[in-house]
Amino acid sequence: MSTWSETGPRSVDEHRAAVAALLAPTGVERVALTDASGRVLAEELAAAVSLPPFDNSAMDGYAVRAAEVAAAAADSPVELPVAADIPAGRTDVPPLAPGAAARIMTGAPVPDGADAIVPVERTDAGTARVRISAPADPGAHVRRAGEDAAAGQALLGAGTVLSAPQIGLAAACGRPDLAVRRRPHVLVLSTGSELVAPGEPLAPGQIYESNGTMLAVAVREAGATAELLSFVPDDVERFRAVLAEKMAAASPARPDLVLTSGGVSAGAYEVVKDALTGHGVEFGKVAMQPGGPQGCGTLQLDTASGRTGVAVATLPGNPVSALVSFEVFVRPALRAAVGHPDPDRPIVTARLSGDLSSPAGRRQFRRGILDAASGTVAEIGTPASHLIGALARADCLIDLPADTTAVAAGEPVTVWLLEV
Amino acid sequence: MSTWSETGPRSVDEHRAAVAALLAPTGVERVALTDASGRVLAEELAAAVSLPPFDNSAMDGYAVRAAEVAAAAADSPVELPVAADIPAGRTDVPPLAPGAAARIMTGAPVPDGADAIVPVERTDAGTARVRISAPADPGAHVRRAGEDAAAGQALLGAGTVLSAPQIGLAAACGRPDLAVRRRPHVLVLSTGSELVAPGEPLAPGQIYESNGTMLAVAVREAGATAELLSFVPDDVERFRAVLAEKMAAASPARPDLVLTSGGVSAGAYEVVKDALTGHGVEFGKVAMQPGGPQGCGTLQLDTASGRTGVAVATLPGNPVSALVSFEVFVRPALRAAVGHPDPDRPIVTARLSGDLSSPAGRRQFRRGILDAASGTVAEIGTPASHLIGALARADCLIDLPADTTAVAAGEPVTVWLLEV
Repeated sequence: MSTWSETGPRSVDEHRAAVAALLAPTGVERVALTDASGRVLAEELAAAVSLPPFDNSAMDGYAVRAAEVAAAAADSPVELPVAADIPAGRTDVPPLAPGAAARIMTGAPVPDGADAIVPVERTDAGTARVRISAPADPGAHVRRAGEDAAAGQALLGAGTVLSAPQIGLAAACGRPDLAVRRRPHVLVLSTGSELVAPGEPLAPGQIYESNGTMLAVAVREAGATAELLSFVPDDVERFRAVLAEKMAAASPARPDLVLTSGGVSAGAYEVVKDALTGHGVEFGKVAMQPGGPQGCGTLQLDTASGRTGVAVATLPGNPVSALVSFEVFVRPALRAAVGHPDPDRPIVTARLSGDLSSPAGRRQFRRGILDAASGTVAEIGTPASHLIGALARADCLIDLPADTTAVAAGEPVTVWLLEV
Repeated sequence: MSTWSETGPRSVDEHRAAVAALLAPTGVERVALTDASGRVLAEELAAAVSLPPFDNSAMDGYAVRAAEVAAAAADSPVELPVAADIPAGRTDVPPLAPGAAARIMTGAPVPDGADAIVPVERTDAGTARVRISAPADPGAHVRRAGEDAAAGQALLGAGTVLSAPQIGLAAACGRPDLAVRRRPHVLVLSTGSELVAPGEPLAPGQIYESNGTMLAVAVREAGATAELLSFVPDDVERFRAVLAEKMAAASPARPDLVLTSGGVSAGAYEVVKDALTGHGVEFGKVAMQPGGPQGCGTLQLDTASGRTGVAVATLPGNPVSALVSFEVFVRPALRAAVGHPDPDRPIVTARLSGDLSSPAGRRQFRRGILDAASGTVAEIGTPASHLIGALARADCLIDLPADTTAVAAGEPVTVWLLEV
């Protein structure tokens, strides 16, 4: 089998597919409702009870037989004895005898025999006897059992992303927890002997480590969990030993994906490439900018528990390259692994506010600011892959196809929205 | 001063302003970068160091004097001694002597005296001597110190919502933490003696508690923290005692807002209204549907630590009314309190897929499903405020003005997007 580097650059779509294929769908776990926000439902939610569970009043008022108040009017009220008082939550509601009314509160069970509710505003609010000054249609202000959902009815499909309304619905059905897809666990490694932890003093030639923190945050924002290991020294044996140790861990500490940044280009000291080449991870070029040097595969290492494999994606070390690569390759793969219905960022078309040129043969992801009101997008910063300041002020990526060499102001371009 | 209920219904905008006015801007706290996702920056972020901090190489290759390789060509390479080897992170880089080259890796400091980088691909990759087969323009492949940001330059303004790129930028500047606005703390109370905890058996007349869980999740999704207290019995004294105890707590357990659902309509057993009336909380009608009965104010109670006040918003008890009221009144107030630049949901215009009628004098928020591709929106379910099943399948609210009584298919309506 020829290697990737021998067959020339991959297209963005080819590498997207390769990374996505590394991650199997995650398993199922049960979480309490209050922990379910943002998770993806793993199985259909059916109504365990009817919603509402019983006929109940939509108003504070009086339960009546509609026929008995048909003649009621302001100048000739119908007076009935109040045979019962039914607050919400009453579980021993007697049937309503003919010729009587029952005082009833919103949400309380409608007594057998009653078929309408007269709102309190249309009565004298009496407690022993009540004078009713308007008729009620049969069924008026009665919420029927099962009106929202019949018991057993499907309410939400597997793959639904859960937030407050869906969680409220599950609670209304009596479910204390829900089956959701397990979050993938990602081990984020940043490499480079020039890196210093933020907050420490910086010597000449050193820079602050930012990729690890940035990628760990991005992983969590994508719905996965992250363990961040920074400052693995540029030592191939040590690097493999750290990975083997993590791969031998039991779930949930065992990573579903190892995500590295840096150490993959053409230099003499490329710890990621040197450590993983020949162990199941392939390195090569993707026809994109930023983010040309990429790698991925299933790493095979001997661990304490035997030979084992783990998915690996290696991102380039420039911060803009790393984050754009994450957006293009890793975020959709992580979201697809939990069955998210929309793995990709929202994509819109906007008109360019100024001319752009782009190198032939490489798909470009430029940093932009979208003006949704006018439908235009402006580039921010330059194509250079180290300008993280511009990336941090961007709210979108401008996706220029590989065969595009120039786009004039006013022409439409594809935009990926990087909403928070 | 006349009370709200005497002056007639408030408009939606009046009540929005009243609820928002209850919450003062929250204070400032420092959080580690990995905890800053979704938070709002409280102060301007300035570059503590230049970005990049020093001139560095954009390529793996050789640092040279451009003038010394100006004549280099494939058929007549320039050969130079390799005077130094400069990996990334080297902190003791010697100046480059005239007539020499230095092997240099991406990100490594450019030595004094060098003014261009020749990529390794245009050399024989020599380590003692190197043959250079192409010229380099002055400045080629050199990233200048401060090119992204000069030391002291403003990078992100107060009010920026933080996610991976902004957090990466802060890390690149050497910041281990950031000053963000404190999340408001919300005490969520659901009331009602008919309520049973999900997972427990249901007697006739009882329903599962869903509002508390749903609202606690909605509060957290709005960027606040929530404490959920369910099943406060319908006992006015007990209700006030629970509130007084919570109000006497020290921050962060002390609520910035007490959020109730239920117990506010015209019935005979309205614990929220009965407990809070006369203590600074006003109740009345808002000209909207669902969600007509509302209340808010600053609750004044005698606590163990003296008389004290806390913001209260009381939502109606029907689950759809409760969540729509949260969206219209509470979510924007919580987000404004942390200085969020976009307190409201994204709002778009779409064409109705079918006719809708609406009662005069009440602003309606109907549940809808947006088809972004065709720009149309369809109602799901009915206007009835107990249909939580339909709410859970909706992805937007259709906002019909109070004076609208009918909208025909194809006409434009305002839509609030309830994205996850």
